[in-house]
Amino acid sequence: MIIDCHGHYTTAPRALQEFRDRQLAALDRPSRRPVPATLKISDDEIRHSIETAQLKLQRERGTDLTIFSPRASGMAHHQGDPQMSLAWSQVCNDLIHRACTLFPENFVGVCQLPQSPGASPAECIGELERCVSELGFIGCNLNPDPSGGHWKDPPLTDRWWYPLYEKMVELDVPAMVHVSASCNANFHATGAHYLNADTTAFMQFLTSDLFRDFPTLRFIIPHGGGAVPYHWGRYRGLAQDMKRPPLGELLLGNVFFDTCVYHQPGIDLLTKVIPADNILFASEMVGAVRGVDPDTGHYYDDTRRYIEASPSLSAQDKRKVYEGNARRVFPRLRSRQQATKNGV
Amino acid sequence: MIIDCHGHYTTAPRALQEFRDRQLAALDRPSRRPVPATLKISDDEIRHSIETAQLKLQRERGTDLTIFSPRASGMAHHQGDPQMSLAWSQVCNDLIHRACTLFPENFVGVCQLPQSPGASPAECIGELERCVSELGFIGCNLNPDPSGGHWKDPPLTDRWWYPLYEKMVELDVPAMVHVSASCNANFHATGAHYLNADTTAFMQFLTSDLFRDFPTLRFIIPHGGGAVPYHWGRYRGLAQDMKRPPLGELLLGNVFFDTCVYHQPGIDLLTKVIPADNILFASEMVGAVRGVDPDTGHYYDDTRRYIEASPSLSAQDKRKVYEGNARRVFPRLRSRQQATKNGV
Repeated sequence: MIIDCHGHYTTAPRALQEFRDRQLAALDRPSRRPVPATLKISDDEIRHSIETAQLKLQRERGTDLTIFSPRASGMAHHQGDPQMSLAWSQVCNDLIHRACTLFPENFVGVCQLPQSPGASPAECIGELERCVSELGFIGCNLNPDPSGGHWKDPPLTDRWWYPLYEKMVELDVPAMVHVSASCNANFHATGAHYLNADTTAFMQFLTSDLFRDFPTLRFIIPHGGGAVPYHWGRYRGLAQDMKRPPLGELLLGNVFFDTCVYHQPGIDLLTKVIPADNILFASEMVGAVRGVDPDTGHYYDDTRRYIEASPSLSAQDKRKVYEGNARRVFPRLRSRQQATKNGV
Repeated sequence: MIIDCHGHYTTAPRALQEFRDRQLAALDRPSRRPVPATLKISDDEIRHSIETAQLKLQRERGTDLTIFSPRASGMAHHQGDPQMSLAWSQVCNDLIHRACTLFPENFVGVCQLPQSPGASPAECIGELERCVSELGFIGCNLNPDPSGGHWKDPPLTDRWWYPLYEKMVELDVPAMVHVSASCNANFHATGAHYLNADTTAFMQFLTSDLFRDFPTLRFIIPHGGGAVPYHWGRYRGLAQDMKRPPLGELLLGNVFFDTCVYHQPGIDLLTKVIPADNILFASEMVGAVRGVDPDTGHYYDDTRRYIEASPSLSAQDKRKVYEGNARRVFPRLRSRQQATKNGV
């Protein structure tokens, strides 16, 4: 079985964005904000939007199950206020739930959190709990910079975030560290802000004792870990200079990398440098890069081909990357699939 | 000949930092700021600080010439005001000049610019011109984020920067894109801010027509290009999706990467993915990572060993990486060396 741990609903019916536009247009007039019931999307529209995109690509590429969440750049936590972020998150998460219910064999949900710049992460607990306990979601996306490129909130290792971590540990769900759109002209979203956030989060973890406080807390750093595996020697050396424990001991029990790296040399480096136990298969399709690489004739984001060709992974390693690690990092996957099997 | 294009004077005598401390202590009382003449550092102190560090390592590692600039994290453009930044830059650059004059065979200068958040880059022209025309410097370090981790100034591709670029083109000097210390708690300087800035600058270049406006402008992106070579497929794909020209055509005539990547797999990736014409040898010693890698028994930043062992580089490629590219990117190196030979 091949589990893709990183897929966003980037092809949602247009009505979703129209709802968001109406919401933002009423930013200064809360009484005129649209209520969720005004968002009308039929099951057929959802089916069509997925069958022609993510599901089609799953079949073509021979992957089985996508861990599916709302569009990352659409979260836009920097826009609006906490109330608006909550309403928007609920709408987006409900739509993910409908998609996963329509295709229970192919998609399982991960939620958007109702973050907002300066608002306590504790405000996200209710929606996380609803998504996990009521909608059967198995994880969340956590934005380390709700300000959208201004980096105004405390680092992920600050106690500011602890109430949310306590709930994650209680529910036994991991978070993918994933920023959203950038409203800072310096940072292109998918070409800079995303990768910078990945690198930044890793270094925050490296310099903290977060995992002593939360030994079972788990994070996936997407996009192949940003710059981290390419600079693994730098990180080993920095940890050593700071008298920190070796990286394996310090954080590899809690931090995992996905495989959203869109060329063979990148995946070769990732799989050579990072232990196979810490790599989760992912493509982020349909996502940041949509074209076909003229050098290979295949989609840039068809990452399964790179994994297959990696010289560092044994057959057993590949099983871990494709399935075993995802089951370990997302333990609720098991009960979710059991429920699906039983028609719940 | 082996030219190391990225070395900072991280071992400067303590009096330099004491001068800076006095400067910052008088931030609100400009009349009490220290004058440069109060900074007393003897030639012997400079000699000692370099002979026991950078020069010793040059000899041990078999490299010949370091392109030498003030300590990057010491620039701290976010502190003080433009006048203070100018005085501080002059002091730091003068010290580099003295070091290069004491060891003319081993070091050649690159200057710190007197940037300040919100101040026009045009304000840096005078100091750049002084360093190049009077002190024989061959390039500059350009901070893409003078705000120190808040990223408040415009992207490097904005016309805001053009007056400085015009002067760089006129003087025929390149810039290394190099941030300084971070005053944003989210960003560890050498573990996140530096690499993020490298990645950010590359994506700014990718999305702009800067090099159509300045066909001979040249930038070195340090630290192996941040996350860029590891995500080369992503960048090729993003450029393609945006209908930009292929990366080679778009920016590889103007953008170069150094080899400050501190493990063999990272250098192997860099040298496989990036054309040999665009890679400049560098170690950043004595710099961000100072320890010995227990896995190899050698210093992490002894990057020559990785270049030697790279399977992608022919003997001719290595000559380019070690020397030829640096001479092409820093054309003033030639006249500087001629002057040194003639005892000027």
